[in-house]
Amino acid sequence: MVGVLGVGPIDPDAPAVHADDLGFSRGDGCFEATRVVTGPAGEHRIDRLDEHFDRFDLSCAGLDLPPVDRAGWRQLIDQLLARWTVPGEAMLRLLLSRGRESELAAGAARVTGVATLTPMSPETLRQRAEGVAAITLCRGFGDGAFTDAPWLLGGVKTLSYAVNMAAAREAARRGADDVLFVSADGFVLEAPTGTAVWAVGRTLRTTPLGASGILGGTTQQRLFDRAGDAGWRVEEAAARVDDLHEADVLWVVSSVRGPIDVIELDGKQRVRRPDVDAEIRRLAGF
Amino acid sequence: MVGVLGVGPIDPDAPAVHADDLGFSRGDGCFEATRVVTGPAGEHRIDRLDEHFDRFDLSCAGLDLPPVDRAGWRQLIDQLLARWTVPGEAMLRLLLSRGRESELAAGAARVTGVATLTPMSPETLRQRAEGVAAITLCRGFGDGAFTDAPWLLGGVKTLSYAVNMAAAREAARRGADDVLFVSADGFVLEAPTGTAVWAVGRTLRTTPLGASGILGGTTQQRLFDRAGDAGWRVEEAAARVDDLHEADVLWVVSSVRGPIDVIELDGKQRVRRPDVDAEIRRLAGF
Repeated sequence: MVGVLGVGPIDPDAPAVHADDLGFSRGDGCFEATRVVTGPAGEHRIDRLDEHFDRFDLSCAGLDLPPVDRAGWRQLIDQLLARWTVPGEAMLRLLLSRGRESELAAGAARVTGVATLTPMSPETLRQRAEGVAAITLCRGFGDGAFTDAPWLLGGVKTLSYAVNMAAAREAARRGADDVLFVSADGFVLEAPTGTAVWAVGRTLRTTPLGASGILGGTTQQRLFDRAGDAGWRVEEAAARVDDLHEADVLWVVSSVRGPIDVIELDGKQRVRRPDVDAEIRRLAGF
Repeated sequence: MVGVLGVGPIDPDAPAVHADDLGFSRGDGCFEATRVVTGPAGEHRIDRLDEHFDRFDLSCAGLDLPPVDRAGWRQLIDQLLARWTVPGEAMLRLLLSRGRESELAAGAARVTGVATLTPMSPETLRQRAEGVAAITLCRGFGDGAFTDAPWLLGGVKTLSYAVNMAAAREAARRGADDVLFVSADGFVLEAPTGTAVWAVGRTLRTTPLGASGILGGTTQQRLFDRAGDAGWRVEEAAARVDDLHEADVLWVVSSVRGPIDVIELDGKQRVRRPDVDAEIRRLAGF
């Protein structure tokens, strides 16, 4: 299902974006993605929409775009969900670009907004149940490269994900499902579409934001808030790959997939802790 | 003017790309851009189309996409040019994406190809005549980061140009027109949409490819070939910003804009050499 901001739902098999849209020609825009759960009576729950709007605004600020039109997006999402009756989980994506180059050149700047709603892929559900094999790949940036360098768009969830997609293909080529990026200095960063979280005893850790350039995770944040309430110690910690090998459990956490147990890292099998994995998934709302 | 590969020319004010096209949602694709010159009788000359197809193929290989459909693109370009009668210079862009996510998920992979043809902007013509002020910005990668790291897409002209666009905005914010990226180690790389070339006496230099991750310039290559024939020494040379300050002339070279004289670098005025600038522009075909 597809909708266009300011227009409403459109035929998903009809084109939605102009050839000179800077989102297409330059990857110049940002996006958010979250989960929608539809109950047997057709009622919908959207996971943490406000938090996603907050992060959307941070991305817009990083790209010199105006704050997102929350009322407009909410209306569009409502229009899509009114027609969505598939029980179970779905993925909602909100895609925002700077707009059409021809209109910008004419001084009439107008962003392009597109929402898509698709059933959760069976592969995602399989990964959540069975876990994934991950590899580490260098992201090339030195630690601290993003300090005082806003043009590098650290922490901005841009439409320019070609490297993230190429990393996922590299994982598939090596027989793995996912990637953990590391900095040129060997520090753990994030997954191409998720946050790294690991447990050591009753402590949950994740990568520090800021100078690392990584994206703040909305579901990781929600998990840390709730885990803190449930007696876990939670903290940001710079870590090396060896620290991940030594952790009790390691997850890639995303808003669409939830916490995914990494059961193999760089070819090394990890001992599974189904009790801890289940607890963390429950705390994260998955 | 807009055309779609496999379809033909379409209304430029009609959408051309689907909401779930990976070029839009992920910047997952690549592009080429070159100049078309239309004479008074309506005859067209496309600059170095074969060389652009060659580089397009390199980009596709880097992205695990099939080689470009040259016959299909040539047919589409011919269809557009048959309707194009604006005398003077125009910009031809060829944009290629991995295609629609829904079709890929269903196993029916089909790339999306879009061509656009637009008159050369007056600003480009002004820059070619008057030169530009440029600033240097760190690109964050250490020198050599791209060695044995194909997932970083070094040398691939991807649709994921958000950082390049953000750098151009940073330049505008500082009152400049263009950017020269430097590596984390301080070596000169390239401009967001062009190649760095500089003259020292009768020697022309540019940045080495490969480990630097930069894109090979088709017009820079053409210039070096012709300058070599005209008695210039031409070479690749790792350089620091100080080397650029000491060069006799410094250009940003692109296939659309041609060689653009950098008349100010990081706020420091450069002594212009109109004779050398004119010779190099002529050798580059501009």
